[in-house]
Amino acid sequence: MKHTIGLIGFGTVGRGICEILLDKKNYLKEKYGFEFVITAVADFAFGNVYNPDGLDIPLMLKQANEKQKFTKDLTDYDNIKLIKNSNCDIICELTYTDLTSGGPAIDHVRAALESGKHIVTSNKGPAALFYPEMKKIADQNNVKFLIEGTVCAGTPVINLTDGPLAGCDISKIRGILNGTTNYMLSEMEKGMAYEEVLKIAQELGYAEADPTGDVEGHDARGKVTILANIVMGAGIKITDVPCRGITKITSEDIENAKAQNKRWKLIGSVEKKDGKVITSVSPEMIDYSHPLAGVMGATNALTFTTDLLGDVTIVGPGAGKIETGFSILTDILSIHRTNGK
Amino acid sequence: MKHTIGLIGFGTVGRGICEILLDKKNYLKEKYGFEFVITAVADFAFGNVYNPDGLDIPLMLKQANEKQKFTKDLTDYDNIKLIKNSNCDIICELTYTDLTSGGPAIDHVRAALESGKHIVTSNKGPAALFYPEMKKIADQNNVKFLIEGTVCAGTPVINLTDGPLAGCDISKIRGILNGTTNYMLSEMEKGMAYEEVLKIAQELGYAEADPTGDVEGHDARGKVTILANIVMGAGIKITDVPCRGITKITSEDIENAKAQNKRWKLIGSVEKKDGKVITSVSPEMIDYSHPLAGVMGATNALTFTTDLLGDVTIVGPGAGKIETGFSILTDILSIHRTNGK
Repeated sequence: MKHTIGLIGFGTVGRGICEILLDKKNYLKEKYGFEFVITAVADFAFGNVYNPDGLDIPLMLKQANEKQKFTKDLTDYDNIKLIKNSNCDIICELTYTDLTSGGPAIDHVRAALESGKHIVTSNKGPAALFYPEMKKIADQNNVKFLIEGTVCAGTPVINLTDGPLAGCDISKIRGILNGTTNYMLSEMEKGMAYEEVLKIAQELGYAEADPTGDVEGHDARGKVTILANIVMGAGIKITDVPCRGITKITSEDIENAKAQNKRWKLIGSVEKKDGKVITSVSPEMIDYSHPLAGVMGATNALTFTTDLLGDVTIVGPGAGKIETGFSILTDILSIHRTNGK
Repeated sequence: MKHTIGLIGFGTVGRGICEILLDKKNYLKEKYGFEFVITAVADFAFGNVYNPDGLDIPLMLKQANEKQKFTKDLTDYDNIKLIKNSNCDIICELTYTDLTSGGPAIDHVRAALESGKHIVTSNKGPAALFYPEMKKIADQNNVKFLIEGTVCAGTPVINLTDGPLAGCDISKIRGILNGTTNYMLSEMEKGMAYEEVLKIAQELGYAEADPTGDVEGHDARGKVTILANIVMGAGIKITDVPCRGITKITSEDIENAKAQNKRWKLIGSVEKKDGKVITSVSPEMIDYSHPLAGVMGATNALTFTTDLLGDVTIVGPGAGKIETGFSILTDILSIHRTNGK
């Protein structure tokens, strides 16, 4: 089947998935019988473009990488019109995350699902704030709302619980959900102070100029909310998750932990207990003997506690252009495999 | 959809999957819309039984656990006739593994696939020796040949590469594929000699009375063959895999490794190199800093090296009645999810 794909957002992730799709074109056709054409792209910096026969993606990548506006196949359609009126069967929502209102991504997602188009997204906003509502609209319109990229990008999480762990009841998920803070804690162990490490993380592009979202735990909190709602059907809001970041961790705390054969990790936790789902994000001292203690640098890891298998742990990369691009690809392939059913 | 299931083999795994299916009957119906009836069971110790409306599984579990023959719904059909003539849509092949001839499991698998029935199996024989041939017959008959349970039982491996890692090119897989030997090496580190540890492993039921299959690496070799053929399309035979077990590892070797901050692990390895697939099973000294080094006891772990994500590691349980039963359930649910497509 030849899929027609639209991208809302042509930033790091949008360009990442385009590069992967172009690189792997033949591989995907041979291995999965997957063929595609990208017909719609919307980006507030580069413009909105549409060509039902397929856009000139190499040219667009060149222009965007050089911070130039698109020049070919321009359209007057705004984002919503483009989503509704394009011939796309899959819309990838790849705009910036807003964990307060979910906008404007939530409008894009709703427009796509209501017009019978699958949504694949790495945007935590709609997933953390409106998952139950969007899933319902998706089901009503017989399309998918897939969000692997919203939790730990390159490390399969949602798709792991949904597929290979199907049949297990998951009672607890604990993990390192934010690569930036894990990198910072790992570096602090080498003797640097918090402020110093933060500066390096910003220089390396791990932390934003305003690092609040990472260091205060908000990013992990969004992921915990998504896991609680999707894996455990909790129906909670992001503000229901008690959240403490790593800003108060001192070099002394790090040394104290070391003396006890422990290590500080920012742990996101979701647990079913007496019919309730208990969630939290906070720094915890983890014993060296636990699988999560050995996970260093900008890496993510989650331990799932299950009824049939006990603990299953997965360790992999967190954010990144190609890693997040992969999460979009894997959800697109999931739609392809099941013919969207 | 209501599935009709047949079990060939009513030993540990056969009873394990029955217990899980009975325990989870309501959960599976609510969560996945999955309903089932077990209509055929064949076991050389307990007899062959068939009832197109459903067998009395609680009674059969009781009889088998008490080592008594089945008394209800007995049939004259031999295994092959039962597979061919029953109303099952899914046959679970759960007899003993023979890594030399693959028999008699291979005849069961062929009969099922040729008569248009899905096969789910934890039997390494057909998977390690005849995968390409069986997959072809399955494709021709529009049914599935699913084998999650053949590699690391409770740790999702095949289904991980097939689903959540879809789109990644996997260039290398290295892992601890045999829980028994990993348990033994872990215990030897505490100061016991090989022979002593082996005796305890046998008492705990980890190792068989004849432990050759585990300690000489044959079990891991079968799994390496399956991974090489399925994940990398190698088309190799089990005898193509160079194989060395742990029988020559002494307490002195263990101490020497420790002095270098390393630890002996029996590593199964599959790697694409210059268009060839290189495989091996052998004990290796692994640095403490590697994720596989921290995996202790009867646990399995695999690191997949991929083009898009770098390394992704999964850690989980190896063998076990419920763990292997789970692997059968998860493949059955996969057939259910895709309506066998």
